[in-house]
Amino acid sequence: MSADEVRLLAPVRPGKVLAVGRNYAEHAAELGNEVSAEPLVFLKPGSSVIGPNETVVRPSRTADLHHKAELAVVLSERCRNLPPDRVPEHVLGYTCANDVTARDLQGPDRQWWRAKGSDTFCPLGPWIETEPGTGSLAIGTIVNGETRQNGRTEHMVHGVAELVSHISSAMTLEPGDVVLTGTPAGVGPLRPGDTVTVFVEGIGELTNPVESAS
Amino acid sequence: MSADEVRLLAPVRPGKVLAVGRNYAEHAAELGNEVSAEPLVFLKPGSSVIGPNETVVRPSRTADLHHKAELAVVLSERCRNLPPDRVPEHVLGYTCANDVTARDLQGPDRQWWRAKGSDTFCPLGPWIETEPGTGSLAIGTIVNGETRQNGRTEHMVHGVAELVSHISSAMTLEPGDVVLTGTPAGVGPLRPGDTVTVFVEGIGELTNPVESAS
Repeated sequence: MSADEVRLLAPVRPGKVLAVGRNYAEHAAELGNEVSAEPLVFLKPGSSVIGPNETVVRPSRTADLHHKAELAVVLSERCRNLPPDRVPEHVLGYTCANDVTARDLQGPDRQWWRAKGSDTFCPLGPWIETEPGTGSLAIGTIVNGETRQNGRTEHMVHGVAELVSHISSAMTLEPGDVVLTGTPAGVGPLRPGDTVTVFVEGIGELTNPVESAS
Repeated sequence: MSADEVRLLAPVRPGKVLAVGRNYAEHAAELGNEVSAEPLVFLKPGSSVIGPNETVVRPSRTADLHHKAELAVVLSERCRNLPPDRVPEHVLGYTCANDVTARDLQGPDRQWWRAKGSDTFCPLGPWIETEPGTGSLAIGTIVNGETRQNGRTEHMVHGVAELVSHISSAMTLEPGDVVLTGTPAGVGPLRPGDTVTVFVEGIGELTNPVESAS
C-alpha cells in the first residue's frame, strides 16, 4: 500500500495543547511586540486539533485568519516540575503544527479561547517523528504554492527543553499533551479556498484546505 | 456505609473547562471592571481539577491566591453550535467549583494559562446533582468558618443556557466537559492553612484545605 492510499488522521488526540507566543525575535518584531523574558504561554483545547488534509474552517465572526508554522512536541509520560535536562526523556517525538489564529478576536476577547482555540484551529501532522535530527531545522509555511514563512528553529528565543520545563512548573503534562514552540516571521492571512502547508525539516509536511463556515 | 467512610473524588475528569469572568455585576464592580456585552471566556485545563478535600496548592511564585465560588455545568453529550433552548438536553448536571486564581499572575502573564490553570486550581464537587432545583440558588464561599461570598445565581449577567450556547458556537463540547458560570461579589485571599468551602444551594458543599508548595 502506498502513502496515497491511506488517510492520515491527527497523529495524537491531546488532552491539552500549550502554545507560546513571540518565541522567534523576527516574528515578535513584525507584530510590533517585544520578546518576553518569560515565555508568553497560552492554552489551545484538544477539541481544536485536526489532522492532515482536514479543513481549517474560518468562523463567520472572523475576517482575519492567520497561519503560524510551529514545531510541535508530543509528550510521552505524565510529568510535573521537569528540569530542562530531563525533558528529552519525556518527549515521544515531534510533528508539524499550524497555530491557526483569528487575529481580530485576540484583542476584543482578551483571553484567546476562541482566537486560538476554535474547532479546526490546531492542525497537527503528518506523523510523529521520533528522530527529526539534531540542530537547526528549516520551518515554514507555503500558501497556494507560495512560501510565506521560512525560518529556522535555531532562532527560537526559548528552546524546547526550556519551554516544556517552564510549562511543567505550573501544570502536569499528560501522555499525548502537545507543546507548540512558536512561529518564525512571515505570518499572513488564510482565505477560503487557500491550501496551506506547514513544513518542518526532518519531519514532513502538513497540508490543509481552508474554507469559510457554512 | 456513611458518607464519612468514603473518600469522594472529583465527580468528573473533564477534557477541558471553560470559565467566564465578570458574570455577576457586583463582582465585576468590586474589581473595577465593567460587565462585557459578550461573556469573557477563558480555558482551564482538565489537569487543574481536584476533588473534595484535596489540597489547593499555592505555587511559590504567587502571593495573591483568590477563591471564586462558581456553579459548574457538566455536559453529557458531544455538542457544537447549540442554540440556548437546546442546552438543557445536553447537561448531565451541576456541581460546585472553586475557580482558584493567582491574581498577581494575571497581569504579567497576559494569558491566564497559569493564573487560572495551574494544578489544583479547579476543585470540583462534591457530586453531580442532576436536579438542583429551578430558579435562583444561593452561592458562596466560607473561609475558616467565615462567610466571604454570599450571592444568588439570579444575578448572573449571562445565564447557563446563553453561556453554553456561546461557547459551543466556537468549539465542540465533549461529554464531561465543564462550564463554570462566574462568581458573585466577595472574592478574597486564600492563605496556606486556610480551609475553603464553596456552597451552592440544592447541590452541596465543596471543601478544600490550602497549603503552600513545598
